[in-house]
Formats: sequence, structure tokens, C-alpha cells
Amino acid sequence: MTSQQRVTAAVMIIGDEILSGRTQDTNLSAIAKYIGTYGVDLAEARIVPDDEDEIVTALNHLRGKYDYVITTGGIGPTHDDITADCVAKAFGVALYEHPEIIAMMESRWKTELNAARRRMARVPEGGSLVKNPVQGPPGFQIGNVFVLAGVPSIMRGMLEDVGPRLKGGAVVIARTLRVDGSGEGNIAAPLEGVAKAHPNLSLGSYPFFSNEGYGSNLVIRGRDLAEVEATVTELSAALRDAGINGLTLLDTPG
Amino acid sequence: MTSQQRVTAAVMIIGDEILSGRTQDTNLSAIAKYIGTYGVDLAEARIVPDDEDEIVTALNHLRGKYDYVITTGGIGPTHDDITADCVAKAFGVALYEHPEIIAMMESRWKTELNAARRRMARVPEGGSLVKNPVQGPPGFQIGNVFVLAGVPSIMRGMLEDVGPRLKGGAVVIARTLRVDGSGEGNIAAPLEGVAKAHPNLSLGSYPFFSNEGYGSNLVIRGRDLAEVEATVTELSAALRDAGINGLTLLDTPG
Repeated sequence: MTSQQRVTAAVMIIGDEILSGRTQDTNLSAIAKYIGTYGVDLAEARIVPDDEDEIVTALNHLRGKYDYVITTGGIGPTHDDITADCVAKAFGVALYEHPEIIAMMESRWKTELNAARRRMARVPEGGSLVKNPVQGPPGFQIGNVFVLAGVPSIMRGMLEDVGPRLKGGAVVIARTLRVDGSGEGNIAAPLEGVAKAHPNLSLGSYPFFSNEGYGSNLVIRGRDLAEVEATVTELSAALRDAGINGLTLLDTPG
Repeated sequence: MTSQQRVTAAVMIIGDEILSGRTQDTNLSAIAKYIGTYGVDLAEARIVPDDEDEIVTALNHLRGKYDYVITTGGIGPTHDDITADCVAKAFGVALYEHPEIIAMMESRWKTELNAARRRMARVPEGGSLVKNPVQGPPGFQIGNVFVLAGVPSIMRGMLEDVGPRLKGGAVVIARTLRVDGSGEGNIAAPLEGVAKAHPNLSLGSYPFFSNEGYGSNLVIRGRDLAEVEATVTELSAALRDAGINGLTLLDTPG
């Protein structure tokens, strides 16, 4: 693997509650930022309903196309929690009750487990567990697919056991140049000129408007720190040459 | 169309800034709730990068599978704003400069428009405009696809001109029964029993945990108000029969 090779992941968010608008997803951006620190780019995301055919079809597509797939949601004990069944079906393997999960839950509940709780102990054959340091049973990994909880605090806890398993590429470095008081209509030409000179980089413009003013955040992203930083300087010069001032290099990499 | 027929939509969020985790999307839930009031169900969502092939392929798939597609993002004046080009390519038509948009922008900017601003006036042949009551040029509709801005305040303004064009089905009614102090492991069996008796309805369980306590929100969704409300009563009784109390019917439909 060269330092420039791109390693990609897709996120599949499983849940009618996201599609109904009832729940605002926050897992996507948390996963994107987290895997980014391991040099894995989030290349696509899908939000699918609690429907077996939809989940199986999407998962088989995504796991073939990207290096990794991370799913969230649908691993609880209720009838609408069908993720484990769907993942097993996608891989063409059976589910079994994982003895470690059974033991963990028996110790937690101090009683014989009912059928609903036993559902949460099911893991596809060939899968390994993903630790849950927060609450409840673990997630699992099978092949290049990581199956995590949907509850954000639990999902974030599980991610800590995903990162070390990722074979990432070079980490993307981002710098944000904030432009105050100029619209994208004026920024576009100098920005495009610099973007065309750096096909290895991604240059994006994200306008903002508020009562305090307007402008755009220009984000320069790439895997070569020196090129990214030189491009910030080059873009600043190109903007000033076009009569655009009010530039601030934001500290927080975007 | 019968009152039970389901009318579906997909959302396609276009933007590297969502996939990088830099920007937290809020458009999806806003669109889901808005189209829901017109009797259109959000059936799937995809988040795709600023990449022509990815956008064209996804759009052609989604517009064939669902009644409507709503896209957000990528309609500004900068080089990474490629949505109009991609939509035209997906439909196999050319883009043209819409005279109304040119006139609108000339009046706004009081000067000859530069090339970047003229980009925002481009609409696919056969398309119609979607009003932008907030700021900047309009979106457009072509066939069953609506192309909206990515900035949330502008996107929401444009949605007001989308709703009246939707031919929706019966509106989904949702009721949320909050259960305090019981875990999903105990709720699962009575919930599943009621869900199986009502295959026309969708019953979901969304657990919550906080320092104040734990429990789950049980959401009953369907198109027949009488059946939804009768099922709330039936589910409450089934939970109490299973020794589960702490039930509250939330006023806000979820």
C-alpha cells in the first residue's frame, strides 16, 4: 500500500426511525471523523428501512464496493431488530448464540434469559465480537463488515474497538480558509483555478449566512501535508489577487 | 389510488462535506417530516460524494425505484457544484440558461453576471423552477426529481414549493407510548405479539438511557387512525399484563 492509496468505507444506517424523521442521526458524522483518523475515507452512506430485502441487497453491494462497511442500528431484542439476521443472510451463514454474550447477560441479569434477550446473543458464524464498553451486549465483525448499535453513546463506545482493526491509508489533512464578506459568485473563479492546479486535492466551498454576516468556508483536503499547506497559501494569494480579503485560516482542521 | 397505497420518496444528499463529517446533516429529517405531511414516505436515503458517476448512477436507480427523489446540495456557483450537470446527464438532456434566473440575478447583482453566477442559472431541458423564497437562485424539478439547495434554511424554503406538487397517499399517523423503567428485553414479547396481530402497522421500539432513568419509546405507525389508536390501547394492555407499568402516551406524534 502506498501512502497515497485511498482506503474507503461505507456506512449503512438501519432504521425506520431515521427515515421517518423521528430521530436525527448523529452517528454518520461521528463515524466519518473517527475512521478519518485511521486513514479511512467515508465514501458513501445509505439509510435503509427495517426491511430484510433492502438491508441484504444494500449490504452485499456496499461490502463488495468498499474496503469496509459499518452498520448502525437494529441489534436490540425486539422484533424490529433484524440486522444480525440480515447480515448472516448476506454472507450466507447461520447465526449462533455466542457463549460469551450469554454468560455476560446472565451475569448482568442474574436470571434465566428470556427469548428476546437471547436474540441479542446471536452472531453470524465466522464473526468476532466488537466490545461494548457502555451498556448491553457487544456488536460484531464479519469479514469487512462491522455491526454496531444505533444508540449514539453505545455506538461511539463500540467504535473504539473498530479503529484498531482498520488497515487505513494515509490520513486526510484538511485546512479551512474562512472568507468573510465575499460571496461564492466571486470566490468561484480563483478557487477553481487553484483546484485545477491540484488534482490530488479536494477543494470545497461551504457558504454561510447569518445576521452577523456572510461568506464561505473553503476547505482544502489531501493526504500530503506540504501540498495542502502550500495550497492554502496559493489560494489565499489567488483570492487577494481577485480583490477578495477577509481571510482567516481556521485552527480547527475541517 | 386507494387510501392505503404507499407513495414513496428517496433523498439523495450530495456533498463531500457530509461524508467527511465536517457538516452535520439536518436536511434528511426535515424532508422526511415535511413530505410525511403530504402522505409521502421517505423510503431510503443516500449520501453521495461530489462525483459525477456516483451521482448519476444513484439518481437513475432511485428515480426508477421510488415515486419521487429529492436531492440536496451542489447547486452553487463553484467548481464542486455539479448537481445540475449530473441530473441533466442522468435524464439525457442538455442544460440551458433559464432567462428568469438570469433576470433575477441581474436585478440582484446590478451588474453583468460572471461565469460562476451564470452556472447557477442552468436548468435541464424540460425542467421547471422550484421557488427559493430565502436567498439566491431557485432549485428545479425534472420528472419526479426535485433539486434543492444544501444550506438548510434555503432547502426548507424551497420545500414549500415542492409539497403542493406531490401526489401523496394517505398520511401516516404515529403515536408514541413511552415506557419508563422497563428494558426492551422485557418489552419485546408483548410488543411482538401486538405487532404480529397488526401487519398493516409498523411498531418500533427506541430505547433511551439517561441519568434520570431508562426505558423505551414504542412508536405505532399506520395509515388508519382508528387502527393506530386501538393498537395503542391493545399494546398498553399487553404491557400491563406482562407486569410492565410506567406507560405514558406522548402528545407529540412521532
